[in-house]
Amino acid sequence: MRSSLDCIPCFVRQALDAARVISNEPAIHEEIVREVLLWMGEADLSESPPRFAQRIHRRLRAMTAVDDPHRAAKDRQNQMALRLLPELGAMVEGASHPLDVAVRVAVAGNMIDMGVTDDVTESELRQAVDRALDPPLGGEPDAFYRAVETAGSILYLADNAGEIAFDRLLIEYLGPDRVTVVVRGAPVINDATLADARAVGLDEMVEVIDNGSDAPGTVLADCSAGFQRRFADSDLIIAKGQGNYESLSEEPRDIFFLLKVKCQVIADRIGAPVGTHVLTRSPDYPVLSEERGGT
Amino acid sequence: MRSSLDCIPCFVRQALDAARVISNEPAIHEEIVREVLLWMGEADLSESPPRFAQRIHRRLRAMTAVDDPHRAAKDRQNQMALRLLPELGAMVEGASHPLDVAVRVAVAGNMIDMGVTDDVTESELRQAVDRALDPPLGGEPDAFYRAVETAGSILYLADNAGEIAFDRLLIEYLGPDRVTVVVRGAPVINDATLADARAVGLDEMVEVIDNGSDAPGTVLADCSAGFQRRFADSDLIIAKGQGNYESLSEEPRDIFFLLKVKCQVIADRIGAPVGTHVLTRSPDYPVLSEERGGT
Repeated sequence: MRSSLDCIPCFVRQALDAARVISNEPAIHEEIVREVLLWMGEADLSESPPRFAQRIHRRLRAMTAVDDPHRAAKDRQNQMALRLLPELGAMVEGASHPLDVAVRVAVAGNMIDMGVTDDVTESELRQAVDRALDPPLGGEPDAFYRAVETAGSILYLADNAGEIAFDRLLIEYLGPDRVTVVVRGAPVINDATLADARAVGLDEMVEVIDNGSDAPGTVLADCSAGFQRRFADSDLIIAKGQGNYESLSEEPRDIFFLLKVKCQVIADRIGAPVGTHVLTRSPDYPVLSEERGGT
Repeated sequence: MRSSLDCIPCFVRQALDAARVISNEPAIHEEIVREVLLWMGEADLSESPPRFAQRIHRRLRAMTAVDDPHRAAKDRQNQMALRLLPELGAMVEGASHPLDVAVRVAVAGNMIDMGVTDDVTESELRQAVDRALDPPLGGEPDAFYRAVETAGSILYLADNAGEIAFDRLLIEYLGPDRVTVVVRGAPVINDATLADARAVGLDEMVEVIDNGSDAPGTVLADCSAGFQRRFADSDLIIAKGQGNYESLSEEPRDIFFLLKVKCQVIADRIGAPVGTHVLTRSPDYPVLSEERGGT
């Protein structure tokens, strides 16, 4: 999806916040803010938000000469999520509709995000899971459950460190044999990479590949040919998080997005308030499907 | 005061919000955002926030060829405040410390602001007044009451339309004969101009002058020589609102600022949470006073 004018102050804000997390140097804070301002002043807004975030975080890593500035935070997030995993696993197992609860837990994990909000605590995460169990999941869960029943192969696009531990529960109920988990190709913010998949033991239960890109989303043109092939060939695609939604929601594929709505731009687009946990389908898919049917 | 890096995303946000209030043209929304980004990328941040806001709103007026885009909103705000005035006047009159209550009402009126927050409703305004009566007023009210006792002349720098009606109550208790009210020299956002002073009848009770500037604050270098003289010669200066604080807090003068804290930058500087109503003195004044004493 295009970036909205409303995304622009948010990019500037995020660049400043990220610079402060990564560096104590006021000169670096000012330099990245000024660069982002000048880029955005001339930017092609048909690019999706993760494209701009990719550029900002590449530049911050270059400025600070730190390749993976959120490594310590990601380790903390993985460990925190792993500590919660046994009780969440028991909860899913004891539920009358385990797949439904596993989906909710996986979406609740999407609150572990340093891109939009600050780092979360274990008690906030526990509360988020509790809150996620009661209300009806927005979007199209029934269509999702039907798609899951028939899919031969499932591509599971992960989002953040920590969150990726919760994904284990859902993947277990999807059936690990037909699932391939995809992580980012290089560190960006707290997005999960191969190191995080290994840290939470996903690599031992399922095939894990990386997409070859350091965008905090799935910018197809920036991904490896190998990933693009898997993306084209999979029967069902599940994509976690707002960055994946922003970069893939207009692809002519049926994709199910599991995310927490984190800003008004996405809230307006999906039709669900900020803070909502949703399971939503590619908005353009039904139309594209009819178009295909007619050709 | 210098603009903080934290002000920059806020300038971009405010430019976009203001453009949407003034115009339905997406091309204008995009144009002002891009211009602000390019300005701010090269900006001298030693300028105060009202300087940047002045530039943004001048450009918006030029783009849309509308000299006073918030005229209708200001009329509504004046009328709304005037409707509340009789009951607020009775409340001040019946109070055990009328000057204290008049100060609180004047600060509560500072919530009528289209620069930072959206337009307010009458019930929100009534609630703000109610809330303003109970808690101790942050800052230095006692020093203010002492200064009021001895001042021969008082310069009262007004802030917004609507709010300026509430200022009448405070001015009455200060004593209209020694007070001069100052409004902006030209329309900017919903800041009060001579038209607003007349609309709420201030011109009939007190001397009203304009400062010759269209900044949403008091940028001395941009003000008329006449105003600058009055600023230098007055015994006591009372300045309403965050824009006046941002532009005057570092002046080597003893100024009492009455404002609602509307952003984190000012909250950090004043040492009071966002949303607080404060009566605060020029932060540098005590130091400057000692320095003066030594020369």
